[in-house]
Amino acid sequence: MALISSSRRLRRTPFSDGVEAAGVKAYTIYNRMLLPTMFRSVEEDYHHLKSAVQIWDVSCERQVELRGPDAGRLMQMLTPRDLRGMLPGQCYYVPIVDETGGMLNDPVAVKLSEDRWWISIADSDLLLWVKGIAYGYRLDVLVDEPDISPLAVQGPKANDLMARVFGDDVRDIRFFRFGWFEFQGRSQLIARSGYSKQGGFEIYLDGSDHGMDLWNALMEAGKDLDVFAGCPNAIERIEGGLLSYGNDMTDDNTPHECGLGKFCNTSTAIGCVGRDALLRVAKEGPVKRIRPVEIHGEPVTGNDRLWPIMDGDKQVGHISSSAYSPDFATNVAIGMVRMTHWDSTTEVDVITPNGVQPATVWETFWN
Amino acid sequence: MALISSSRRLRRTPFSDGVEAAGVKAYTIYNRMLLPTMFRSVEEDYHHLKSAVQIWDVSCERQVELRGPDAGRLMQMLTPRDLRGMLPGQCYYVPIVDETGGMLNDPVAVKLSEDRWWISIADSDLLLWVKGIAYGYRLDVLVDEPDISPLAVQGPKANDLMARVFGDDVRDIRFFRFGWFEFQGRSQLIARSGYSKQGGFEIYLDGSDHGMDLWNALMEAGKDLDVFAGCPNAIERIEGGLLSYGNDMTDDNTPHECGLGKFCNTSTAIGCVGRDALLRVAKEGPVKRIRPVEIHGEPVTGNDRLWPIMDGDKQVGHISSSAYSPDFATNVAIGMVRMTHWDSTTEVDVITPNGVQPATVWETFWN
Repeated sequence: MALISSSRRLRRTPFSDGVEAAGVKAYTIYNRMLLPTMFRSVEEDYHHLKSAVQIWDVSCERQVELRGPDAGRLMQMLTPRDLRGMLPGQCYYVPIVDETGGMLNDPVAVKLSEDRWWISIADSDLLLWVKGIAYGYRLDVLVDEPDISPLAVQGPKANDLMARVFGDDVRDIRFFRFGWFEFQGRSQLIARSGYSKQGGFEIYLDGSDHGMDLWNALMEAGKDLDVFAGCPNAIERIEGGLLSYGNDMTDDNTPHECGLGKFCNTSTAIGCVGRDALLRVAKEGPVKRIRPVEIHGEPVTGNDRLWPIMDGDKQVGHISSSAYSPDFATNVAIGMVRMTHWDSTTEVDVITPNGVQPATVWETFWN
Repeated sequence: MALISSSRRLRRTPFSDGVEAAGVKAYTIYNRMLLPTMFRSVEEDYHHLKSAVQIWDVSCERQVELRGPDAGRLMQMLTPRDLRGMLPGQCYYVPIVDETGGMLNDPVAVKLSEDRWWISIADSDLLLWVKGIAYGYRLDVLVDEPDISPLAVQGPKANDLMARVFGDDVRDIRFFRFGWFEFQGRSQLIARSGYSKQGGFEIYLDGSDHGMDLWNALMEAGKDLDVFAGCPNAIERIEGGLLSYGNDMTDDNTPHECGLGKFCNTSTAIGCVGRDALLRVAKEGPVKRIRPVEIHGEPVTGNDRLWPIMDGDKQVGHISSSAYSPDFATNVAIGMVRMTHWDSTTEVDVITPNGVQPATVWETFWN
């Protein structure tokens, strides 16, 4: 691994001082912001995430705020998921598509009220697309990036830790719902969500100046729970089939290719700019789609580029994310596989940096 | 410096194999792509850039292509610079602003023909803004990111090196003009431009598959010219006052604050979406603006965040980029300074990681 050169452009977060004090070893850049990737080691972080509780600086999940009378209309223009039944207090995972049905982002939409939304984004400047659409359609809506910095609390002991800091009522937050909780006199949005399968919360910190106080309060309260700094874990997220925008999908892909057809209500999501383009794929289905792929043989090192999936001399897909899983004692991977080879237990080959390795296509992820 | 975790999302380039073979030591991420920042050392790279010739992988200058009958109209909507006099074969540095006059990018526009443009972008997903505007206005234009990867050849010996590979006609390309030159049977756009003050060219490589051939051809042809891999150099670009979007300016800033008022023709750039918002600032001038700042005392280490510029207890600006300059034997920096303190030779203080350091505001950069 090479070094990363610091600059203001690679933005620090309200929690960066805490991340550094915890001994962060590596970063990625996500939405032009620092996102830790490793503290002790990826494998040690992985075991700890599954057994204890971690505090994650995911400030890089920037928010796009929509506010004003046309906020709801604009939100529906962005996604093929039907939002009519969504209530304030709910979070929806929403594919965002352009006019050709290509994925621009796969964020979580947070409905604060009928005329106010946050879009908690994956790695693309979705703000620019939303501003462009709002301006082009002359909508009555303000679109900007507020001073909101999500901090995730993830792991089996997340409930206990959060209850100590925010009170027992946090235990009652249902999955993909949120409530408001006070911290140092300011009301904070807390959702039961997060980019792991271990359970937990995301605190949408309002006000950078409270960042280190919140970080320290959680670290202090969780000492006997073995709390430690963590981050989205490459192994755990691949086991669980959590997709990463930019890795596993890009604007070349439709939601249906990404296995997100269940979040597309193309017949009822009236107003979505990509609806026309998606009608056909919704009816006929995609010709390739994301699948879990088990790569046999030597442990792999993770993808810095796509690896071809082969059937003999013919390429039938590619691997976009991979890791050796200690718990499953095999290489777990996410691939985009052509229809001819996507049935469960199909045997293929993957060209990895190790050479050609046999692999099996599955239908369900490990977790 | 921490390590950077590789992933497909942090895109490799057609020249990455060459960059690695040359022993790259550090990267930044720019438009979700790898951009080298250091080969031998920042200081050694700096001296070499000023005396020899370097090959820079600046593939991260992604292109936004506009093609179709409304391409010219769309291009003018994006910028307050009057483009009516621009001819095919010219490059213009164009501030791009939103409807509030905030800077979204500061790219170079390349006019290929009346109905075809490339926008060679700085670090923001300008593609999304342009697509949003084009869609909202129902313009007859295709907007996408083509397979174009710029490779820069910079330094005093750039003319000689380029002539060896592309023929003596490259010497005739004027500043911010381009011509078409053949390489391995394919026509390539070559402009006299680049992100240094040492002179040189940018080859807009069309076709990733020719990347390493081009890299190797230049390296081979320049052996006796002391050619080596290089990259935008932090010291040299600050000396020369070359701004960096995301570092020295953001969407909070107007072009006028960035000293780019000379590229804004607010009275004649009819159609620019930010024109109304900029009319007042164009008339009255900004209340703060970018200035060269010399920081006295101990060498500084570069900004990973803004450093306050103080007059006593009062903040009067901030430093966004800084470096110790061996050639000028002082710390050179780029600051945003309030009107009350922007006159040349104004004495201020800067709060650096070293502590409080005296500083002088200047009007012209070092180079």
